[in-house]
Amino acid sequence: MIFDRLTERIVKTQCPVCVGLDTALGYLPEELQARGTEGIFEFNRRVIDSVADIVPSVKVQSAYYEVYGEQGALCFRRTMEYAKERGLIVIADAKRNDIGATAAQYAEAFLGEGSAADLVTVNGYLGTDGILPFLERCSRSGKGIFVLVKTSNPSSGELQNLRLEDGRTVYECMGDMAEKWGEGTRGEYGYSCVGAVVGATYPEEAKILRARLPHTFFLIPGYGAQGGNAAMLKNCFSAGGLGGIVNNSRGILCAYKHRGGDYAEAARAATLDMKADLLGVLGEICARS
Amino acid sequence: MIFDRLTERIVKTQCPVCVGLDTALGYLPEELQARGTEGIFEFNRRVIDSVADIVPSVKVQSAYYEVYGEQGALCFRRTMEYAKERGLIVIADAKRNDIGATAAQYAEAFLGEGSAADLVTVNGYLGTDGILPFLERCSRSGKGIFVLVKTSNPSSGELQNLRLEDGRTVYECMGDMAEKWGEGTRGEYGYSCVGAVVGATYPEEAKILRARLPHTFFLIPGYGAQGGNAAMLKNCFSAGGLGGIVNNSRGILCAYKHRGGDYAEAARAATLDMKADLLGVLGEICARS
Repeated sequence: MIFDRLTERIVKTQCPVCVGLDTALGYLPEELQARGTEGIFEFNRRVIDSVADIVPSVKVQSAYYEVYGEQGALCFRRTMEYAKERGLIVIADAKRNDIGATAAQYAEAFLGEGSAADLVTVNGYLGTDGILPFLERCSRSGKGIFVLVKTSNPSSGELQNLRLEDGRTVYECMGDMAEKWGEGTRGEYGYSCVGAVVGATYPEEAKILRARLPHTFFLIPGYGAQGGNAAMLKNCFSAGGLGGIVNNSRGILCAYKHRGGDYAEAARAATLDMKADLLGVLGEICARS
Repeated sequence: MIFDRLTERIVKTQCPVCVGLDTALGYLPEELQARGTEGIFEFNRRVIDSVADIVPSVKVQSAYYEVYGEQGALCFRRTMEYAKERGLIVIADAKRNDIGATAAQYAEAFLGEGSAADLVTVNGYLGTDGILPFLERCSRSGKGIFVLVKTSNPSSGELQNLRLEDGRTVYECMGDMAEKWGEGTRGEYGYSCVGAVVGATYPEEAKILRARLPHTFFLIPGYGAQGGNAAMLKNCFSAGGLGGIVNNSRGILCAYKHRGGDYAEAARAATLDMKADLLGVLGEICARS
């Protein structure tokens, strides 16, 4: 069960950090840029090697690969496979959404036996029809999904913070749906196979959601470049510092640009700094199972 | 401007039909199935050849290609390029959604110079941050997007039909956002570069949206296999039968399975039947520009 595995890794590493491989070509040193998607893979490979013993997981953002067509698809697959080989839990950040047979194709693409991903992000605007095909795939594979609930971006409230007639906000409603979709799939640590994306940049909403969704594991974007800091994201975690993992992409991948030196070493140093920052707020991460 | 071009094609062909290339391997005759993505491309190519003179556009559903990794990405690209070569307007049905620099990568992938797509479907749950990068790309290329507003599936109302405190439903709110995102981009026929997905299966909602969103062109799924018929989808159109195009995938691709004969010829016959069915309700399609 994926969130059991992820929780165990987090406790072991004491590092609830997900390294985001949103590897834009412009992030690479010039000599790698010239090699296109081969350069992107080489960059990812060395970053993965550099952090594999200190973090539980990586998140690979599909958009940065899709832009290169079939070469990008190959680089995306190889990156996920390499991260898996190095023992990391792999999140495919694809925010897919569709219905019925089409959603089943996406579920197969991202969570099927041919994919190295353990988790995929999905968008729940279409309702249960768009989620069930993923859950069916998860039930056979022990994998999971993250549903977008409250996203980290400035305009996320335009729809997500509107209040419904029944008193809930749209993000609370989506959170309730995520909690419900996960029913009957809880693992050892109490989390179902349906997680939620909850931005570090909205601590009030995170507090509400953390209390409201006790069986939902949070993927937390927005730390660093987007303005989220450790104090703000404490609200995303349950007691013992469990129930969440914080993504950081640019802050890790581009650390060498201001720290100097080798990009992979700088990525490791930035990750360790982030770990210290988070643990300063969360304290020791303890499983209560 | 894409919706001018699409409107002119619809008036010329008198056929507001989009052929959906949701080409599942199981839809193919056995001899083509054995050839994998090469077989899928061959099937698409012959269907495109068979309908290119009678329809304005095709919609290529990304999920059915992504499941084959880099081979699928190649087949997706070749299918779109071939449809474009044959003079068709190409809709990439990808329902992408992300923010900022990541959304810009998706916009480049689907609407950039390297892509044969004229339009891409997107999901607006993340708000304006997720849409602006697509609009910036559209302003340079004359291309457009379709925002998911009211989808055709049975559970679409779980979120979309909830009523907000301000009296609007969530789908009305999303429709209002689409109309607003399109401001300042209207073409000759009054439609902006931001269209909406509005399911044929919900005629009451379609009627409300058609009146509410006068400058928004509708992509209408749900005809045929999902239960939508011509009478139900009249509400999706403006006066003169303008402002919408109806997708049909399985009903066209799999027509040969019950009609017998060659799949490409059966696809053409099914398309002509659908055209007659729609025109029976819409009457002659007339541009008022």
